[in-house]
Amino acid sequence: MSSSFDLIIKNADVATASDRFVCDIGIKDGKIAALATGLSGARDIVDATGYLVLPGGVDAHCHLDQPMPEGVKMADDFRSGTISAACGGTTTIIPFAAQEKGQSLKAAVDDYHHRAGDKAVIDYAFHLIVSDATDTVLTDELPQLIRQGYTSFKIYMTYDDLKISDLEVLRVLDVARAEGALVMIHAESADCITWLTEKLNDAGLTAPQYHAVSRPSAVEREATHRAITFSELVDVPILIVHVSGKEAIEQIHWAQGKGLKIYAETCPQYLFLTEDHLEEPHFHGAKFVCSPPPRDKKTRHRYGMALKKSFYYFFF
Amino acid sequence: MSSSFDLIIKNADVATASDRFVCDIGIKDGKIAALATGLSGARDIVDATGYLVLPGGVDAHCHLDQPMPEGVKMADDFRSGTISAACGGTTTIIPFAAQEKGQSLKAAVDDYHHRAGDKAVIDYAFHLIVSDATDTVLTDELPQLIRQGYTSFKIYMTYDDLKISDLEVLRVLDVARAEGALVMIHAESADCITWLTEKLNDAGLTAPQYHAVSRPSAVEREATHRAITFSELVDVPILIVHVSGKEAIEQIHWAQGKGLKIYAETCPQYLFLTEDHLEEPHFHGAKFVCSPPPRDKKTRHRYGMALKKSFYYFFF
Amino acid sequence: MSSSFDLIIKNADVATASDRFVCDIGIKDGKIAALATGLSGARDIVDATGYLVLPGGVDAHCHLDQPMPEGVKMADDFRSGTISAACGGTTTIIPFAAQEKGQSLKAAVDDYHHRAGDKAVIDYAFHLIVSDATDTVLTDELPQLIRQGYTSFKIYMTYDDLKISDLEVLRVLDVARAEGALVMIHAESADCITWLTEKLNDAGLTAPQYHAVSRPSAVEREATHRAITFSELVDVPILIVHVSGKEAIEQIHWAQGKGLKIYAETCPQYLFLTEDHLEEPHFHGAKFVCSPPPRDKKTRHRYGMALKKSFYYFFF
Amino acid sequence: MSSSFDLIIKNADVATASDRFVCDIGIKDGKIAALATGLSGARDIVDATGYLVLPGGVDAHCHLDQPMPEGVKMADDFRSGTISAACGGTTTIIPFAAQEKGQSLKAAVDDYHHRAGDKAVIDYAFHLIVSDATDTVLTDELPQLIRQGYTSFKIYMTYDDLKISDLEVLRVLDVARAEGALVMIHAESADCITWLTEKLNDAGLTAPQYHAVSRPSAVEREATHRAITFSELVDVPILIVHVSGKEAIEQIHWAQGKGLKIYAETCPQYLFLTEDHLEEPHFHGAKFVCSPPPRDKKTRHRYGMALKKSFYYFFF
Repeated sequence: MSSSFDLIIKNADVATASDRFVCDIGIKDGKIAALATGLSGARDIVDATGYLVLPGGVDAHCHLDQPMPEGVKMADDFRSGTISAACGGTTTIIPFAAQEKGQSLKAAVDDYHHRAGDKAVIDYAFHLIVSDATDTVLTDELPQLIRQGYTSFKIYMTYDDLKISDLEVLRVLDVARAEGALVMIHAESADCITWLTEKLNDAGLTAPQYHAVSRPSAVEREATHRAITFSELVDVPILIVHVSGKEAIEQIHWAQGKGLKIYAETCPQYLFLTEDHLEEPHFHGAKFVCSPPPRDKKTRHRYGMALKKSFYYFFF
Repeated sequence: MSSSFDLIIKNADVATASDRFVCDIGIKDGKIAALATGLSGARDIVDATGYLVLPGGVDAHCHLDQPMPEGVKMADDFRSGTISAACGGTTTIIPFAAQEKGQSLKAAVDDYHHRAGDKAVIDYAFHLIVSDATDTVLTDELPQLIRQGYTSFKIYMTYDDLKISDLEVLRVLDVARAEGALVMIHAESADCITWLTEKLNDAGLTAPQYHAVSRPSAVEREATHRAITFSELVDVPILIVHVSGKEAIEQIHWAQGKGLKIYAETCPQYLFLTEDHLEEPHFHGAKFVCSPPPRDKKTRHRYGMALKKSFYYFFF
Repeated sequence: MSSSFDLIIKNADVATASDRFVCDIGIKDGKIAALATGLSGARDIVDATGYLVLPGGVDAHCHLDQPMPEGVKMADDFRSGTISAACGGTTTIIPFAAQEKGQSLKAAVDDYHHRAGDKAVIDYAFHLIVSDATDTVLTDELPQLIRQGYTSFKIYMTYDDLKISDLEVLRVLDVARAEGALVMIHAESADCITWLTEKLNDAGLTAPQYHAVSRPSAVEREATHRAITFSELVDVPILIVHVSGKEAIEQIHWAQGKGLKIYAETCPQYLFLTEDHLEEPHFHGAKFVCSPPPRDKKTRHRYGMALKKSFYYFFF
Repeated sequence: MSSSFDLIIKNADVATASDRFVCDIGIKDGKIAALATGLSGARDIVDATGYLVLPGGVDAHCHLDQPMPEGVKMADDFRSGTISAACGGTTTIIPFAAQEKGQSLKAAVDDYHHRAGDKAVIDYAFHLIVSDATDTVLTDELPQLIRQGYTSFKIYMTYDDLKISDLEVLRVLDVARAEGALVMIHAESADCITWLTEKLNDAGLTAPQYHAVSRPSAVEREATHRAITFSELVDVPILIVHVSGKEAIEQIHWAQGKGLKIYAETCPQYLFLTEDHLEEPHFHGAKFVCSPPPRDKKTRHRYGMALKKSFYYFFF
């Protein structure tokens, strides 16, 4: 080979998405120019004998520097978050650019580019969060942003400051269908959670562990079934995010068995935590509050098994 | 027997809910005083040889003289409706006393007693329809009415003038649980119907047959699953009314298999009509508009089979 | 009433299958001749004030004096069994007339009539057990016996001395369809039980509690699904006997949801016992060995709940 | 790069299992030695500009030169079959080495190596077919062959000359579990097919289209459920081969939803044919006889949709 490289990584144990083999890697102008044996001739040479060399990870579900209700601040901004990602081998992130109610969707995207601009140390893209599905958003902003490359966005069936109505979900899905975008759905039933929370508040049960009681599996299952029905009516794929356990999974499998294009992911908290963590004393349980909440040991165990044997449950 | 009867029906082929036998029936003071052979001694004697003698029917799902939107009037009032019922052997009806939005529930009940008062020729009771679940209704009127004997009521998940929100459904079910009443639910998804109707209107598809397109089986199935979840969370039985076909039935069977107390009924229109009837020319299809709409031939056939062999599907 | 009675039961709290009312009962020639108020004129009069008067019970699933393998004898014959039944208010039993392999089905029926003849103190009928589905049985004996009134019979999918092959099950169901009889099926998978039993024997695990391990719920579920498929192919109703828990119930509900005529019963042992009873010390656990075995506490609890609230699960 | 290549493919549009990129491919000693840009220095150079360069295909489910019943001969041997495969871009096949009843499993493997030896023009491996699960096969031959690299094998639940009993299936799965092998299962219910075939023969219905009637979807569904139960009891993954349609898929999805390791494939005939092909006149329908048979248009259509959009259903 006549050309010389900027960097050669020798004897790398290369693992791609589908293959694994030992070879040298020649890099020129920031790109892989050669996967070959016996490479030589570079400014820098690193010997990777005995080391795995992997593509940089892509974290497609994270939140950074997202504005929170008064008095709460998200722990990570684009500086700390991307440094942390890089340390773990993740070189691309896709956090969310969240529209606030009343805000233009484009303004939200601009705002997030601004937040990321000087701070991100790795590559990033954005999923949108559509929380105010106005006519302008549906007929103008969203189609334009999709055509500009923001081809995925998330909607919420719960949380007062983010949720949209069933009718708005249908309209958003309709745009996704027309424009070829993928909608991610946070599937928990808002009214069920409100009712259960009122009951718990009335009974004075406000400790962290009651977070799990306020949104049991049936609440996630119901919203999952509803989201599946929306997907079926509009005839467009959806991705159910952070599936926490068996009841929602059964709905997803049932829908897939009908030939519907329902995709799903789970998240690490459902593989490593249970509702028992919410009971840790001295309010430490509050550290484990997430929605949907961690489930019981049996659910975690089944996920853990799946994790050990394969990644079947991560994307199913 | 020393006492004489007001009326004896001789040689009746008596069929009760569980038995069938031939005997005489002795009636005194408006009540059955004897089922026996060889009765004699009455003011009137009717020979029923060769005739079935049945208890009077109870029609637990009918609507009479219910106020309708401007320009529409319900065909039957309590006079014509109860005469018609009596002619068919039905001696008791349980129509609905429908609360209008903004109206007191007690006022609605009073109004219906007034509508029935002079006109009904047979016995009647009322199911309530709760369409405005205010605090007064939930904490005062509804509990009182249940204690007075109005132990069943219906709520709607669709129709703008009747539907209540998911949160209100949960609150109504909670009252039913506390007071031991039974809630009947019209399970169709309002927002899905709105979205599909908008699509049809935009396309100029407003003929009667599009009624069926605007509320397909999936719309009924989704609301049925949602209603089941409400029942599960509140831990109270419900009755799904006028189930139209397979998709909703599968949800009900699934819930019953989990041990939930989900009851259901179907109605004659789903046993005798199909969506094809909606296509009858010269707007005659409009005569068959009901919600949920009649389904396809396969569904009707399966119901029909069930009807012929047993009443399995009537109350399942 | 001119006629006098042999016996009058005064002031009985009569409960029939569908009604309950207080009246007198006039009996003549061994039959109920009058249900009426104010009866008089009988040889014998019994005052039943404050007592329920019920129709005699029918026990449709019991085994009496059935020949067992060498060294084992069934505890009850037709004398002790029917006296015991009568003491509990059961006045009719339908035990099984079991064909042994190699035996004529008619010979089996004759044998059981002989066993019952002098001993039974209450009414009895027989279900047949078909354990040897020879051509003679299928084309000659079984059709004749059905026409004589033996319209129900049981077949086994397990037990070496009783089980018939899948092909024989299909042939028996075909006869039932042609003749209008009802087949009861003991649904457990013979080969699965054999394999698990070999494993347990190899490991020296022969105590009574391993009976439950040798035939887990999945084994019952599989055979239930298989039996349902046979019913579907032959297009004939079946009755799954002694359903022990959730996994088999789910199959039955799924089949009923498809419109198949699958009936089922459970038995008291599944409502009152759990697998823990099999662990009682000093071999007392052996008293609770039955097939399918009692299941876990959660299953028993759900059945118990159902029992308290209604009889939903007894015949579902 | 100092070394020169035997062959360089220039400007290839390379598609691996997960990536696609344009580069040169350097080959030395029959292996890919370099994927790089600007390669030069080889005995042979081929310009692939504008062409896809793909890894050779692996056909993991084909039958070649398998002995058939008297009077029938398989169309392809290892010569014609492998030439045909190569023409389609398949460079490795994994046909089946089928044990005949009474034959040693090793003898079967030796026989197939012999059949392939001089004739195969591409790479090949063998799945075993275990049709006679004797003690010697289970405890000696099969474990040894697995350790030698024959890590997958197929068993049949139907076909008189191949099928093994349920008990033998369990024993074979047990060996697979102990040795870490994967069992493929042909899931159709033998006895159901026998019974239906007898019925068809009795009615004189022997034309090719009755092949589909003799093994309807329910027959495949039942055997699939049974195979899943075996996998569950033995706790070992299985692969259901040539799944033909919805009913079996529902069972597989249900099992996957329970966390069981049930894998499945479909085959091209179920994507392109329907039962209507079996009706082609002049006995041409017989060309489309396969088991399970092609299903109805609706099933084919759903598979076809899946095929167009993704390969979801090929391995699911």
